[in-house]
Amino acid sequence: MVNTCQWGHNVRSCEESGRIARHGWLANLLPAPGGEELTRGFLQEVVDILLGYISKSSQRSSKVLDFHHPHQLKEGLECFSLDLPDQPETLEQILVDCRDTLKYGVRTGHPRFLNQLSSGLDVVGVAGEWLTSTANTNMFTYEVSPVFVLMEECLLKKMQSILGWSDDVGDGIFCPGGTISNLYSILVARYHFYPEVKTRGMGVLPQLALFTSEQSHYSVKKSAAVLGMGSENVFMVKCDERWVSSKPASVLSHQALVPFYVNATAGTTVYGAFDPLNAIADICQRYTLWMHVDLFPNVYAGLCNCISICLSVNQICKCVFRIYVSVNCQSVSVELFNFKYLFSRACSVTWNPHKMMGVPLQCSAILVKKRGLLQECNDFGAEYLFQTDKNYDVSYDTGDKSIQCGRHVDVFKLWLMWKAKGSEGFGSQVNKCLENAEYLYDQLQRRTDFELVLKNKPEHSNVCFWYIPPSLRGQPPGPDRDARLHQVAPRIKGRMMEKGSVMIGYQPLGDKVNFFRCVFSNPATQQEDIDFLLDEITRLGDI
Amino acid sequence: MVNTCQWGHNVRSCEESGRIARHGWLANLLPAPGGEELTRGFLQEVVDILLGYISKSSQRSSKVLDFHHPHQLKEGLECFSLDLPDQPETLEQILVDCRDTLKYGVRTGHPRFLNQLSSGLDVVGVAGEWLTSTANTNMFTYEVSPVFVLMEECLLKKMQSILGWSDDVGDGIFCPGGTISNLYSILVARYHFYPEVKTRGMGVLPQLALFTSEQSHYSVKKSAAVLGMGSENVFMVKCDERWVSSKPASVLSHQALVPFYVNATAGTTVYGAFDPLNAIADICQRYTLWMHVDLFPNVYAGLCNCISICLSVNQICKCVFRIYVSVNCQSVSVELFNFKYLFSRACSVTWNPHKMMGVPLQCSAILVKKRGLLQECNDFGAEYLFQTDKNYDVSYDTGDKSIQCGRHVDVFKLWLMWKAKGSEGFGSQVNKCLENAEYLYDQLQRRTDFELVLKNKPEHSNVCFWYIPPSLRGQPPGPDRDARLHQVAPRIKGRMMEKGSVMIGYQPLGDKVNFFRCVFSNPATQQEDIDFLLDEITRLGDI
Repeated sequence: MVNTCQWGHNVRSCEESGRIARHGWLANLLPAPGGEELTRGFLQEVVDILLGYISKSSQRSSKVLDFHHPHQLKEGLECFSLDLPDQPETLEQILVDCRDTLKYGVRTGHPRFLNQLSSGLDVVGVAGEWLTSTANTNMFTYEVSPVFVLMEECLLKKMQSILGWSDDVGDGIFCPGGTISNLYSILVARYHFYPEVKTRGMGVLPQLALFTSEQSHYSVKKSAAVLGMGSENVFMVKCDERWVSSKPASVLSHQALVPFYVNATAGTTVYGAFDPLNAIADICQRYTLWMHVDLFPNVYAGLCNCISICLSVNQICKCVFRIYVSVNCQSVSVELFNFKYLFSRACSVTWNPHKMMGVPLQCSAILVKKRGLLQECNDFGAEYLFQTDKNYDVSYDTGDKSIQCGRHVDVFKLWLMWKAKGSEGFGSQVNKCLENAEYLYDQLQRRTDFELVLKNKPEHSNVCFWYIPPSLRGQPPGPDRDARLHQVAPRIKGRMMEKGSVMIGYQPLGDKVNFFRCVFSNPATQQEDIDFLLDEITRLGDI
Repeated sequence: MVNTCQWGHNVRSCEESGRIARHGWLANLLPAPGGEELTRGFLQEVVDILLGYISKSSQRSSKVLDFHHPHQLKEGLECFSLDLPDQPETLEQILVDCRDTLKYGVRTGHPRFLNQLSSGLDVVGVAGEWLTSTANTNMFTYEVSPVFVLMEECLLKKMQSILGWSDDVGDGIFCPGGTISNLYSILVARYHFYPEVKTRGMGVLPQLALFTSEQSHYSVKKSAAVLGMGSENVFMVKCDERWVSSKPASVLSHQALVPFYVNATAGTTVYGAFDPLNAIADICQRYTLWMHVDLFPNVYAGLCNCISICLSVNQICKCVFRIYVSVNCQSVSVELFNFKYLFSRACSVTWNPHKMMGVPLQCSAILVKKRGLLQECNDFGAEYLFQTDKNYDVSYDTGDKSIQCGRHVDVFKLWLMWKAKGSEGFGSQVNKCLENAEYLYDQLQRRTDFELVLKNKPEHSNVCFWYIPPSLRGQPPGPDRDARLHQVAPRIKGRMMEKGSVMIGYQPLGDKVNFFRCVFSNPATQQEDIDFLLDEITRLGDI
């Protein structure tokens, strides 16, 4: 059993509270009369478990995960049972359940967790979530969330100013994840061009067409399916076509479809590549299309943030270069311009602080330039919530902008982290991730047992590569080598999970067989972890 | 400044950690080398603030809220500023920010917070959320959430078994709130009848019609608008028509609309009333319509739970009676039958544990009887997440069932609470709320300064009433009295918020002018709080 007092502090009172908790039942906790002491003791023990977990997650000697197959966990391990009882358990057992849940989970804050962009364990962010869950309120009205509603307004304004939007435009809302943010962008775009859709449905509209790159996130297709537009009507622009200016019209010249929406990706999911935003903005302007920018997959936000606020001219130039190398990593036009100009041309932007900015999941915003559109598109004015005869300015009852009714408070942790880091801190954090990506790129170039998927320097924090096991080195390219190489990454990934030493993702893409994608967003990751990753892949791959 | 050590324990080490935190900066916290002690000290101080908040929230001598208008909070109060800095603040200031955020917020766990169904402060639920945010992972794959994915499966199976669904059917997913759950129900219903909609959109479908009662939650209309069906195509069945069996056909006999979906509400938002589920199921069966049951507004779940598992025969009969009194509170047919039968006829059910079950927001499930439908409707098989060549059974990668990509872990707190309460505990908790509703109903009948909106006993935990101020007593019914009575509830609500003594909602409904809706879900609320509520309304109303 994990020692709940492993932080070494306060051993005596910990033991006392331990005794309290072990003899307690939920029914004796607050709000039960006299429940204060037991409540304190119980929650303190939970906190001791969590502090121990945070400490261990930061230690490289800890495993990233203690892998078990589903059937193993379901059968029950060392008194850990998932089954739900009719009778209550003791608080002591609840503490054991908490420890076991963490024990069999994945340490996403571990320096060697490189599997996803939502990673890391920001201590202030965690504190923000602890407070949020203790406050347990709802974003729908100012009445029940006065402070959080104002924090949302404050954050949205800050984000809009970073995007270069002027004070007299801009609206937005925090919502549960980047896919939902992208869905909002299509929803409001449709309403903007065809407001009758809200009451009359798609039946009275022409067949609409949407555009996005073939390397964009799948949420554009998924959203189109959900919204009743059909995934086939999302046209996947080939990345080497680079959004030729006449594209939307020519694609559709023989079809009865009406283009209305373009999603431009700033940081694709796998390569971390950037669409030519300015060229896309030109097209959207010419054809009166809605331009959405999806900062979702790799969250350009951090970059944008540091660019607009605190970086030196030198760094700005570097970032401009990053943007203007193309999707397939062949440089095309390196233009120096004001970054803000790009985003000021977007009609809407998805911005996910729960990725590169390291905010605990979930934290995502949809920013819409046209003020009032979210409200008009979504409001139904339920009188039990959004009374107009309240004693305060009801424009702060923002809940009818949202698809959701009840809405979790996702803003506080971001607000608190912004206080603790400042804009500069976010900038430095993102830069650190970019440096890690460059370091990995450099190491891969030097090693003969690895092969880069893209030869150029990474555009963002993603680095994609194959491990070439001894048996494949020197084998000529072709279907046979591809077939064997395709099996390498999954085999190594399986072994690293079973060993629990490191986690990194892999996938095929287009005509490229399975390759590793290393993505840096975890502030705990150092160069030594990158060295370890490559050595470990070699160790596991050569078995 | 709030004394962070007000729980009285461990004053010495609290002071020590206080010194640590006050001199610390975020950059020195973990994962910074040697950051353990500072991290412990900082988080311990946050916890002390939260424990103090929990303690105060349970005290009746505390205010429910310390009300300020938006402009007052935005101007900044006693060093509390919402502004986001470029430079980092000290950890000491972060602690002050945490205290102030709680100070100016609303104590939704206070015994006299009766404003919303998502209320209360369940200590084990809060502990569950603290652990969830510390684990900071994502529900999309087993790979990163092995334990939480299995907990979701376990909870969904339990809920399905409570609904009376057999082992060979049933699917579901937790999603961000009841409105999204209801949206899912329409989404999968549409896909079930018209699978081509996913790729081809609404353009190839007939004009669809949906049915729901005029007292159902607005999420049905909102979802229809989002999904491209149009809110006008949601037919609002009058509540006194009681779903006459031929209704869907007759309503549409002269229109080119195809009915496909019926939402039945089990516990309406304002009255807490129940649709005749069995009669609706007959209609749906006859016309091959999708029957969804929305347990969302008042969460019948708790009731259902206690009925199916642990209540005495006497209690079951009482609950059956509750169900079969009609929407407008005139008893129609009181039938004795197996409750499970009702839900076994539903094609999908929305169940919100974050309401009557007292789970911290957000926690909502959509349960779909037809297995595989959620996956077929929503999957796009993104290869960077849902690789099919993983080392484990990838049927546990449930993320492609969902509209969302990244998905917050909402299941752990519910699982932990179920462990701590047992099914019986949830049953008792709901019963306590029903008893409170009956107590309030009894008190209102005895007092001449109040008038019940519905004369019959409450069907669920909602009680609706007017306060009649002295100036209106004895005045004959009519437009003049109505106009004046309409202003009474908002005026009193404004005063109670400014005083911070109690919180309760109000709204008009149909031809009824503004009335109070008291809804019980907060386990902290006792009869003395109900007495206080009525006395306080009288005090504030007579000013």
